[in-house]
Amino acid sequence: MAAEIVNPRTDSTSSTDSTERAESTDGDGPDSPVDPVFALHRGGKMEVTATVPVRNADDLSLAYTPGVARVCTAIAEQPELVHDYTWKSQVVAVVTDGTAVLGLGDIGPEASLPVMEGKAILFKQFGGVDAVPIALATTDVDEIVDTVVRLAPSFGGVNLEDISAPRCFEIERKLQERLDIPVFHDDQHGTAVVTLAALRNATRLTGRALGELRAVISGAGAAGVAIAKILVEAGIGDVAVTDRKGVVHAGREDLNAAKRELATYTNRAGLTGTLEEALAGADVFIGVSGGTVPEEAVATMAKGCFIFAMANPTPEIHPEVAHKYAAVVATGRSDFPNQINNVLAFPGIFSGALQVRASRITEGMKIAAAEALAAVVDGELSADCVIPSPFDERVAPAVSAAVAAAARAEGVARR
Amino acid sequence: MAAEIVNPRTDSTSSTDSTERAESTDGDGPDSPVDPVFALHRGGKMEVTATVPVRNADDLSLAYTPGVARVCTAIAEQPELVHDYTWKSQVVAVVTDGTAVLGLGDIGPEASLPVMEGKAILFKQFGGVDAVPIALATTDVDEIVDTVVRLAPSFGGVNLEDISAPRCFEIERKLQERLDIPVFHDDQHGTAVVTLAALRNATRLTGRALGELRAVISGAGAAGVAIAKILVEAGIGDVAVTDRKGVVHAGREDLNAAKRELATYTNRAGLTGTLEEALAGADVFIGVSGGTVPEEAVATMAKGCFIFAMANPTPEIHPEVAHKYAAVVATGRSDFPNQINNVLAFPGIFSGALQVRASRITEGMKIAAAEALAAVVDGELSADCVIPSPFDERVAPAVSAAVAAAARAEGVARR
Repeated sequence: MAAEIVNPRTDSTSSTDSTERAESTDGDGPDSPVDPVFALHRGGKMEVTATVPVRNADDLSLAYTPGVARVCTAIAEQPELVHDYTWKSQVVAVVTDGTAVLGLGDIGPEASLPVMEGKAILFKQFGGVDAVPIALATTDVDEIVDTVVRLAPSFGGVNLEDISAPRCFEIERKLQERLDIPVFHDDQHGTAVVTLAALRNATRLTGRALGELRAVISGAGAAGVAIAKILVEAGIGDVAVTDRKGVVHAGREDLNAAKRELATYTNRAGLTGTLEEALAGADVFIGVSGGTVPEEAVATMAKGCFIFAMANPTPEIHPEVAHKYAAVVATGRSDFPNQINNVLAFPGIFSGALQVRASRITEGMKIAAAEALAAVVDGELSADCVIPSPFDERVAPAVSAAVAAAARAEGVARR
Repeated sequence: MAAEIVNPRTDSTSSTDSTERAESTDGDGPDSPVDPVFALHRGGKMEVTATVPVRNADDLSLAYTPGVARVCTAIAEQPELVHDYTWKSQVVAVVTDGTAVLGLGDIGPEASLPVMEGKAILFKQFGGVDAVPIALATTDVDEIVDTVVRLAPSFGGVNLEDISAPRCFEIERKLQERLDIPVFHDDQHGTAVVTLAALRNATRLTGRALGELRAVISGAGAAGVAIAKILVEAGIGDVAVTDRKGVVHAGREDLNAAKRELATYTNRAGLTGTLEEALAGADVFIGVSGGTVPEEAVATMAKGCFIFAMANPTPEIHPEVAHKYAAVVATGRSDFPNQINNVLAFPGIFSGALQVRASRITEGMKIAAAEALAAVVDGELSADCVIPSPFDERVAPAVSAAVAAAARAEGVARR
């Protein structure tokens, strides 16, 4: 019947043929004549579909009234049945307030929706996980937390997305305290998991051990803080994190709460200078800042170092320069080898967590995800292949299985 | 790739084949051996799917980064573009607090999800409208209102569902004051629209005029109040609404705000007695109470009266009894003629409202929906056919077109 209705999506008859949809533009995108990006986005990138038939009165009596009443009653009597007889345990809320969208900054909730829709379809395509964009009309930490807590009965997990630091840390912590479903800020942990996987393979390739490496992270935002944390958890020798004012250390008076905490478990070497000074003799550079690092500083890094310059579109150190000094080079770009791409992590992580109905996503589950991700390329390991392609079909199943197993091992699995 | 992943929905490989899904039960529903209702509900009844391809790096560069950034920027500069380049204008939030679910009452948000999922798939099947269940973990009026206001950037409309009276009236009013998208409490207005359509055809069939009819509504909850309101808007001669204590009238001290308002525009006859007393000489009975009416009272109604006994599963007046006295009989049940079913209204109403980006759903739009619904059966009009079947494929397109036209006529359309 839908096919007979004027569809708000296209102003023409409804269609679920993506090809047709993608071509159904009348060419009036902001960049006319027809711009393929705007043409593809016309009407959005996703839809909700029924997985059961609703063709006749018999179907309706099973999927809706009167039949549905018995399912409701059963859940009211045995609350855990909500996981078996609704989509709750397979659907994730992709929650943002639009304050740190890609490199665009605070563009607001509506303008963030194309990214949230993109995230949602990646969840489904790569992880088999349903996801719904929830862009909120508030940037107040407690209002965001209260709102997500009230939404929680409808969802199996919460993926926080593009929320600015340091607010993102407090929002995630408060939600994890109040909810018994996974709450995961992908800008932090997705990036951290993929970075650890690439670093793990870089050490394997070069016969090094994490414990003997000193890393420098340029950028103390969501990604930098989470990467530092997971590297310490994984046993890195030392890691220093720098912001615009240089190395984050306990002696600084200008640190927010997140950076003060960071100073307590990073920078054992007690560095106090600039990024460039910190790089002298460093074994690993991890760029999540968007700044640029002069070649003179890169040249002072230790022999056989690793350079992960992940800023998009312009890496902090161009791969051509990096290769002059580094044994392994990675970026955030798809047009160079070793792309550090979150899509390698979040679909499998949520798939595994939802599969076992994990109450949260622990550090151990993240490290298990990184190890599984790294192991995918064991056979093909090389300087240009320390991390799989986002389209490697082995990735999500491997990550999902490792996360599910780790959840069981850590006692946060509920099935 | 999803196909390779353990899917939380079925614990087997992912499938969108509803047949396979429906059969994928291991027979452990509360009513084993295999109960078809629980088998069908296993894993829920809906999923989110991409409407654009995400097969390779080129697809990703259009649907996600870097391409998506240009769409975000365009919306940030021209906010109205969110309607063109995201799914916002075709997706409705189906919002409940689980306090008045079907006939089950206050069973809580999780237990209400099967109904909300059912509603969502009906939206898609009958109206081509995407819908997302949002069951809230609060029953506080202001918390519900604040939460929905914060969600609004992500949705083109809000369908309030199964929220108990009188809270539902205040929640709807406050949301309509604060939002510029349609907010529609289906238990009120969906029922009212379909009831008016059936009554309109009953008058056509019998050569009566609405203005000469006196109606009695049994039940002063969400449906009763909304039906009384739309009947007055449509020009009914008089309508009295009764609750457990009898006719709602201004002289009563025990009325809540909603009933006090009701008393100001209903019961011109100044009735003060019981339902049974009110029925003496009445032309129309509308039951939305779940009570039962003794045949002696039915026998006192005017000759050629109309009886719409809509309680489920047990009509206030059994059709066999009703037919002894009434010219037209309708119920809420699918196994009798003239089923008053909300699915005849809400999919087309939202489809039409979203199509023209209406800022709200006015009384005029509801009456237009009722007139269009009634007109669908013009050709087949008979005592057993004053309202179309829920599966009549002409219904949603007719209602959608009428609602869109009325929105334009009333100046609430934005395209």
